[in-house]
Amino acid sequence: MPLAFTRIGLFAKHNNTSVSDTLKKLVIYLQAKGHTLFIETESNVLLADTPLTSVAREEIGALVDLIIVVGGDGSLLNAARAVVAHQIPVLGINRGRLGFLADILPHNMEQELEAIFAGQYLKEQRFLLSAQVKRHNTVVMQEIALNDIVLYNGGLARMIDFEVYVNDQFVLRQQADGIITATPTGSTAYGLSAGGPILFPTLNAITITPMCPHTLSNRPIVVDGNSQIKLVVTESNNIAPKLSYDGQVYFDLEIGDEILIKKHDCEFTLIHPSHHEYFSVLREKLSWNVHLLQD
Amino acid sequence: MPLAFTRIGLFAKHNNTSVSDTLKKLVIYLQAKGHTLFIETESNVLLADTPLTSVAREEIGALVDLIIVVGGDGSLLNAARAVVAHQIPVLGINRGRLGFLADILPHNMEQELEAIFAGQYLKEQRFLLSAQVKRHNTVVMQEIALNDIVLYNGGLARMIDFEVYVNDQFVLRQQADGIITATPTGSTAYGLSAGGPILFPTLNAITITPMCPHTLSNRPIVVDGNSQIKLVVTESNNIAPKLSYDGQVYFDLEIGDEILIKKHDCEFTLIHPSHHEYFSVLREKLSWNVHLLQD
Amino acid sequence: MPLAFTRIGLFAKHNNTSVSDTLKKLVIYLQAKGHTLFIETESNVLLADTPLTSVAREEIGALVDLIIVVGGDGSLLNAARAVVAHQIPVLGINRGRLGFLADILPHNMEQELEAIFAGQYLKEQRFLLSAQVKRHNTVVMQEIALNDIVLYNGGLARMIDFEVYVNDQFVLRQQADGIITATPTGSTAYGLSAGGPILFPTLNAITITPMCPHTLSNRPIVVDGNSQIKLVVTESNNIAPKLSYDGQVYFDLEIGDEILIKKHDCEFTLIHPSHHEYFSVLREKLSWNVHLLQD
Amino acid sequence: MPLAFTRIGLFAKHNNTSVSDTLKKLVIYLQAKGHTLFIETESNVLLADTPLTSVAREEIGALVDLIIVVGGDGSLLNAARAVVAHQIPVLGINRGRLGFLADILPHNMEQELEAIFAGQYLKEQRFLLSAQVKRHNTVVMQEIALNDIVLYNGGLARMIDFEVYVNDQFVLRQQADGIITATPTGSTAYGLSAGGPILFPTLNAITITPMCPHTLSNRPIVVDGNSQIKLVVTESNNIAPKLSYDGQVYFDLEIGDEILIKKHDCEFTLIHPSHHEYFSVLREKLSWNVHLLQD
Repeated sequence: MPLAFTRIGLFAKHNNTSVSDTLKKLVIYLQAKGHTLFIETESNVLLADTPLTSVAREEIGALVDLIIVVGGDGSLLNAARAVVAHQIPVLGINRGRLGFLADILPHNMEQELEAIFAGQYLKEQRFLLSAQVKRHNTVVMQEIALNDIVLYNGGLARMIDFEVYVNDQFVLRQQADGIITATPTGSTAYGLSAGGPILFPTLNAITITPMCPHTLSNRPIVVDGNSQIKLVVTESNNIAPKLSYDGQVYFDLEIGDEILIKKHDCEFTLIHPSHHEYFSVLREKLSWNVHLLQD
Repeated sequence: MPLAFTRIGLFAKHNNTSVSDTLKKLVIYLQAKGHTLFIETESNVLLADTPLTSVAREEIGALVDLIIVVGGDGSLLNAARAVVAHQIPVLGINRGRLGFLADILPHNMEQELEAIFAGQYLKEQRFLLSAQVKRHNTVVMQEIALNDIVLYNGGLARMIDFEVYVNDQFVLRQQADGIITATPTGSTAYGLSAGGPILFPTLNAITITPMCPHTLSNRPIVVDGNSQIKLVVTESNNIAPKLSYDGQVYFDLEIGDEILIKKHDCEFTLIHPSHHEYFSVLREKLSWNVHLLQD
Repeated sequence: MPLAFTRIGLFAKHNNTSVSDTLKKLVIYLQAKGHTLFIETESNVLLADTPLTSVAREEIGALVDLIIVVGGDGSLLNAARAVVAHQIPVLGINRGRLGFLADILPHNMEQELEAIFAGQYLKEQRFLLSAQVKRHNTVVMQEIALNDIVLYNGGLARMIDFEVYVNDQFVLRQQADGIITATPTGSTAYGLSAGGPILFPTLNAITITPMCPHTLSNRPIVVDGNSQIKLVVTESNNIAPKLSYDGQVYFDLEIGDEILIKKHDCEFTLIHPSHHEYFSVLREKLSWNVHLLQD
Repeated sequence: MPLAFTRIGLFAKHNNTSVSDTLKKLVIYLQAKGHTLFIETESNVLLADTPLTSVAREEIGALVDLIIVVGGDGSLLNAARAVVAHQIPVLGINRGRLGFLADILPHNMEQELEAIFAGQYLKEQRFLLSAQVKRHNTVVMQEIALNDIVLYNGGLARMIDFEVYVNDQFVLRQQADGIITATPTGSTAYGLSAGGPILFPTLNAITITPMCPHTLSNRPIVVDGNSQIKLVVTESNNIAPKLSYDGQVYFDLEIGDEILIKKHDCEFTLIHPSHHEYFSVLREKLSWNVHLLQD
């Protein structure tokens, strides 16, 4: 049986006036349909003189049955990290070009939502990564990411030195600009830029892909989604690397820090229109229809 | 409880005299330990005037508890495909350099086997691929592969045109020299040469990697191990592609042929010495200890 | 002073009826303008009951001031190889999509030619490669190529073993599906598929790019255009490789054969409309306008 | 006629005690041979209580016939940039592993230098890049580099947006972590890590290689060494990129900055022992002797 989406929480891309119109149109549509609405505090600014009841991003998940994000994949990632503990499904209305995650386009938003509220939608479970930083046996940082955890040289075009362990087995030591640990969801984001493979979104696997490795003998690795990955910032670094979560949260590391990465306990539920087809999005965004054929 | 390896079947790399010495030494050792031995027919030639009871490669699996292969990874692949239906574990004595699969070196073969017969070993399950070719709705070819199924341009340095479907969903159409569908085992073989990622050997996933694709917008794909993959030889080919199974069995395709690839019903059991460590082999074979660091 | 193009030789993509219309239209236009026309023998078939004076492909270059090719880049390569010794400039009318070499589109062919005959055009010099095969100190094959010379495994998905020398200096020995030696012109063709870099068309350099090398430690190499490159088919091959010239001429190699590759004595002159811009073609054909940006 | 190396300038890797021993041994040897010695100021610290006449790095080139660098390729790059205007040849004594540039090993240093002073050496010319930053039509930065000029995201794992022009022709606009413009010398350094090709050291060409480009349709480009390259930091960046010269000099860029890169007026002369062979170094450092061959 499909879910009832009576109470809806809204997130929007901040400080973006072009998003504002779509958000206002959405609010009017949802209110007319009788939904109870809440909006994340900073997104409320976009509604100007007709604000809704606003709630902090960490708390909105407790009050609603569905989150609708107006923005792009980045905004959806941000919302997803905020509400994942409440297991609230999320759907995205994309500001412009088709997104991998936010795949409803503004111009036919009402028609698409009509169908979704009538129970015609696809529910996709995506897992997240949880990464904690251990310093002298104390956890000094803990965060989650839907796309990727990136260890990198923070600010100098200079390589860092690190070790990678999987399930306490030593895999490799490497000098590189950094290393990306990505979920299948993240495999079409930064991991792709670094040369990583594309993982089916529902595959239970994690990719480990170095960024500009200072060796020829290198290749992306794909490990089981239940693996424990450990990255160690070795003593031989003369710059202090950084850690990023979905490219949205940053943390300054120190020599000797250990980063422990594993699948997060809660999965994230993404709502798609029922006509959604993963490879169709991929083909369009990756230009798989373009050929070099000469004759 | 460890398996009892009383009846042992032997395979050896054919027509290779350097393998012959190791095989003879092995036979003497195994006979001295009281094992009952059978040997694959063509391998028996290597034993010259002291042959064993020989059995066809398809039948030897029914008679024994363990297969020992003297050769390299290629010989082990060949043996594995012959005995997998009988679920007989296989171990490999490598002719020279360390192999990914055959990882016992001849010089300490007796010591390693001693430990293995005493129950000190690692058992690793590896899945195989089964691929059938359908022509006008009739299956005209069916074979299995431990490494990979390769669709390729057979003989001309010219691209072929094919479509890829996963679980009946259209993924892409491509012009390339060919496309490799590989198991995790095969991900360190031909798939690696074509730029594919390295999959953990026990990961339940299949990689799809094109060979020299005639487009820039391309990337290896990793799908769930239980996926049904379909490759279609499109009408626009003006050369007839070929299909290879582990690079050992070849088949001539025709325009319109469909290749259906999925996980084979039986898994293959690989025996390793208990000190075996997957990434240690990988580091050595892929030179992950070599750095370009300049200063 | 621009060249006078009074006597024109025509080449067309063989056996292609869709090319026929464009060719006929072209002939009428050129005859009306008073040009003297010759056509390559096999292309003449396309003109059906209104044939022109036909000449063998090797001889047409001696009779004309300009070659016009109707077809794609492959047809233009073929014509270029036939007339390069006569130093006759070539221009291409592309059958459909924009080509790298043949860059006049049929729908505005007359207008473009008008401007070219009026002296408004770009002349671009492109160098060719000459490759001879030496067997037991005898030259058994000699041909030229505008794009590339490819040494490859002819028909089996199995690697070949070869050595590469540059100016008699040993560079590397490799196991791969093959190796591509390409001009800058060829760097956007097969070399690109194999992962090679894009060379500016007028750069005096040659790229050497392996196809699916069975090693991780590999990278395309770019050498001076005046280098002498030698490929050696080593004794350890158990299949006989092949050699291809522009993917159009094929030759069966034997163990021990040496392939000597160097710049051909004559350059080839390509005519472009004066509005031609190399990177504009590249951006369009390689989809450099397509981005993955998410937010 | 070989050069006379009577007056020698010394550079050593700073703050590195392991370099100190080699440097002291070198000084004793050179003094015994009657050479007049000068040392760069900061390197003099390594000589402790037996210092030489020290000279600032910018001035030492005016006083000597030869520079000897004790350190690695990084130290040699640093010295080369300091003395290139004086056209003084440079040779490097490598602290440990063989370098691409510094290729005399300490253990047979005296024997190698003996031969070099007797005129038995190879002289290799390498070109440098000069890059200036223009801001509102004013040059705000100008520096040279022997390896590479890197435009990159300084500190955030976030892409930057830039345009590339070659000889005032628009090439591409891209989102990436950065972009590397490298000499042939630099093609085996950072450019290699980012996936760029290897250029013969004496090839007159420059490579342009993006770092983690956020698009699939990308490829390194090789342009003529006499090209004028322009990078533009577009208005759409929301982080301020940085520019690095040989990874040793850093500069903070602003939106709208233009980076103009061309070949530097002076070439740099590198001295090698006469047995030096470029590809031999490459094979060793890039592990081109390591194969994945299985059987």
